[in-house]
Order: sequence, then C-alpha cells, then structure tokens
Amino acid sequence: MTDTPVTAALLVIGDEILSGRTKDKNIGYVAEYLTGLGIDLREVRVVPDVEEEIVAAVNALRARYDHLFTTGGIGPTHDDITADCIAKAFGVPIDVDPRAVEMLLQRIKREDLNEARLRMARIPQGADLIENPISRAPGFRIGNVVVMAGVPAIMQAMLDNVVPGLVKGVPVTAVTIEATGLPEGLYAAGLGKIAASHADLSIGSYPSYSPGGFTNQIIVRGRDMALLQEAETRIRALLDRLRTERPS
Amino acid sequence: MTDTPVTAALLVIGDEILSGRTKDKNIGYVAEYLTGLGIDLREVRVVPDVEEEIVAAVNALRARYDHLFTTGGIGPTHDDITADCIAKAFGVPIDVDPRAVEMLLQRIKREDLNEARLRMARIPQGADLIENPISRAPGFRIGNVVVMAGVPAIMQAMLDNVVPGLVKGVPVTAVTIEATGLPEGLYAAGLGKIAASHADLSIGSYPSYSPGGFTNQIIVRGRDMALLQEAETRIRALLDRLRTERPS
Repeated sequence: MTDTPVTAALLVIGDEILSGRTKDKNIGYVAEYLTGLGIDLREVRVVPDVEEEIVAAVNALRARYDHLFTTGGIGPTHDDITADCIAKAFGVPIDVDPRAVEMLLQRIKREDLNEARLRMARIPQGADLIENPISRAPGFRIGNVVVMAGVPAIMQAMLDNVVPGLVKGVPVTAVTIEATGLPEGLYAAGLGKIAASHADLSIGSYPSYSPGGFTNQIIVRGRDMALLQEAETRIRALLDRLRTERPS
Repeated sequence: MTDTPVTAALLVIGDEILSGRTKDKNIGYVAEYLTGLGIDLREVRVVPDVEEEIVAAVNALRARYDHLFTTGGIGPTHDDITADCIAKAFGVPIDVDPRAVEMLLQRIKREDLNEARLRMARIPQGADLIENPISRAPGFRIGNVVVMAGVPAIMQAMLDNVVPGLVKGVPVTAVTIEATGLPEGLYAAGLGKIAASHADLSIGSYPSYSPGGFTNQIIVRGRDMALLQEAETRIRALLDRLRTERPS
C-alpha cells in the first residue's frame, strides 16, 4: 500500500460492445472493485478488434497510469487478437507458452488441442499468467498491464487472482447525503462554495430521474476522515437550512 | 444518407462512472441506437470531471470521427463543467443563452432562476440547442459534437431530438448464427478462413457463460446482403459438418 494515489485505466476490447450487441458489464464492476482497493480508475476506453487501435490505446494508457486492465479478445477465434496486440505494444515476441498449455490441458484433452485452441496459450514473452478457474485459458500480466477475458464471470475470477500482486492505495471513503426533496438548482451555489473550500475532496451531486420526478444524492469522497466529516457537516447544515427556508 | 461509412465516438463524462457509484447505462444504448442508424460507433471513452481531461478527449475524438456524442456534466452544480469544456475545446466564448433561458422558464419560475440554474443555460457561441422534454435544460450541438445529459431518460430523449439533423449511413445488417453445442475451439479454424475471405464483413464469435456452461453465437455484420448471405451459408455448412463429425 502506498500513500500517493494509485491510478488505473481500463481498456475494453471488442466490436460487440461498440455495435451494442453486447452490453458491457465489466466497466461498472472493475470501477467498483478498484475503488474498493484504493486504486483510482481515471479513464476507460472501448476500442474495436482492430490491431492498430488496440496497440495505440494500450501504449497511451499504460504510459499514463500505474495499472492498465484490459478485457476481451483472448479466446480461440480469429477476432481474438488481444495477446498479439499486447506483444506488439511491448515489442516482445509471442508464442505458445508451455505453462498456458498445461492450464488448457486441465479442461481440454491433448488430442483436442488444435491450433485454434493453442491460440489461447499464446502469451507475450515475459508475462506472468493469471489463472482462470472457469474455462482454464489464462489471462496474463506484463509490465503494468493486466489482460483478462471479456466474459464477466471469467473476468471477475481473474481480477480476484491478480489483485494480491498489485500495488494498491488507501481506499477512498464515500459519504452519501440524500438531498431528496431539494432541487439541485437550490443547493448548487452553497454546495459549490463548500466544494471550492475542500479541494482535497471530490464532491458531486447526482440526480436520478423516474417518472415521479428527480431525486438527488450528494456524494463526498476522500481519504482524510476529518476533512470528510467537516464537509459532510457543512453540507447537511446547508440542506437543513434550505429545507427550512423553502416555502412549502 | 451517404455510402461511405459514417463514424462516431462517445465520450462519457463523470467521476461517478469511474468510481463505480453509477453504473453507466448510456454506452450500450447509444451503441445500439447509432448502429440502427448506420452510424459506426468506433470508440468510447470515460473521463472524470476534470477540465483538461475533457477538453483533450473532445479535441482528440471530434477530429477523428464524423460525430462525437457526449453524456454528462450539464447540470447546475459545480461539478457540471461540460459546456465550459466544450467552449474551450472549440475556442469560442460561452455565456447564458436567451434561447436556453426560455426553455428553462417552461419549468422554473423566473424568480427561481438563480445563478446556479442559469449555469444550465450557458451555451457555447454558435451552438444549436437540443430540446429536453423532461427537465427542459437543453443539450446542444456545435460543429460535429452533440452534448447531452447523463441521466439516461433525458439522454435518450435528446438523442431522438438531435438525430433528424445528423448525417447517417447505410445501416449494417447483422446475422446471428447459434453455435450452441459446439465449442469455439472446434470451429475457430474454419471460421477464421471464412472471415479471411470476407474482409468486407465483420465476423465475430461471442461466448457467454452460465454455470451450465458456454453457449456461443457467431455474428456476421455487413452492408452487402449478397456477401452476408454467402458468408452465412458457408458458416452454417461449417457448423453442420462439425456437428456431424463430432463424436457424441
């Protein structure tokens, strides 16, 4: 664990997300998971199954953040090109890795291990494997990049397996303050002043809409409990004052 | 409508998506919506409520794609900075727009139109407004950038309102072929050959996992019906052959 913020990006790879055919379930999961570990997810990108796009995104994101996680594109079919793209991004060779073959053999008979299936054992040189308890084809970790499957259940298991080896930060604490019954436009000025005087905290106002109308939540996020409590007290006082003043 | 592909990117703006507090519902919706219009969504990015990040992403994406759609950050609170960032990205002034004020007055009494609420009427110079039938605060369109709310119901209504004015393409047709009962590793080689000989089509294999096991779908996407049918016929023949050959 480190005191300086630990940052991450997520790269979601796959035509099926961009066409809307598959609705991504990994972004929200990874976001919540990393937040719980004190790792700040700072950016997400979704790119198609196109080599130059994947390589460019991997190189841009791994240079900029402490960790880069990728999902998708590590199966046996022709459109699964993630491992080759990662090797290209790092400028290292890629070949069938005997350790990965051993993992595949836990599920697939040796005589069924055809060329397509062996694609799932192609691992860039220098990578560590990430176990896949479901379908055995491993993910891998190279440099600061963690490469995972796109299928949510497998991605989640890989995340559990890779996390012990990662640099983590101090988890952020989030305080939720219900602003129900008060429109954002009424408390925005006061909230903005409080936010401006608490630059170390992230203070957001989040409306949600249902046919019955809007309900708003204010969320204060930060790592210093004393500052968090101070901001919370000020915000609650602001909302109480507005509720009292407001003509019923 | 144009014969050349029409491309788009989506920029999702908001700390709450990156912290996992809010699970994005707009990416999948916009992806499916644009696909239906013949607009190819080529990239998605999620960035935090940080001016330099938003401005950089807007400028990178609007230069590269025919359309850029953004969601989030156009409310009345201090963390709603999208409109100002768009103005900065385009290098144009931004101020309270009388047309937007008129829209707000359909829902908010003039005496309640405080400074925070007027933030929702701040529109970059030269933009066209996008009506918001739910809470009235408009989105806007400037150059090739369409700026929408983050609340899904409002975003969806804005998308409906802005679409008539957009350049659209020839919709892609998608053919879904169930590969149930066949593992990807068995048909991957044959499918890869078919895909290689149909470079004008996008052919993908998509596994989904439930505790009962994997089910796979092959999806062929393209704009030329004759090519699509040819590929479909070849893929169905491949799967039939494998099902027959496979020891039961």
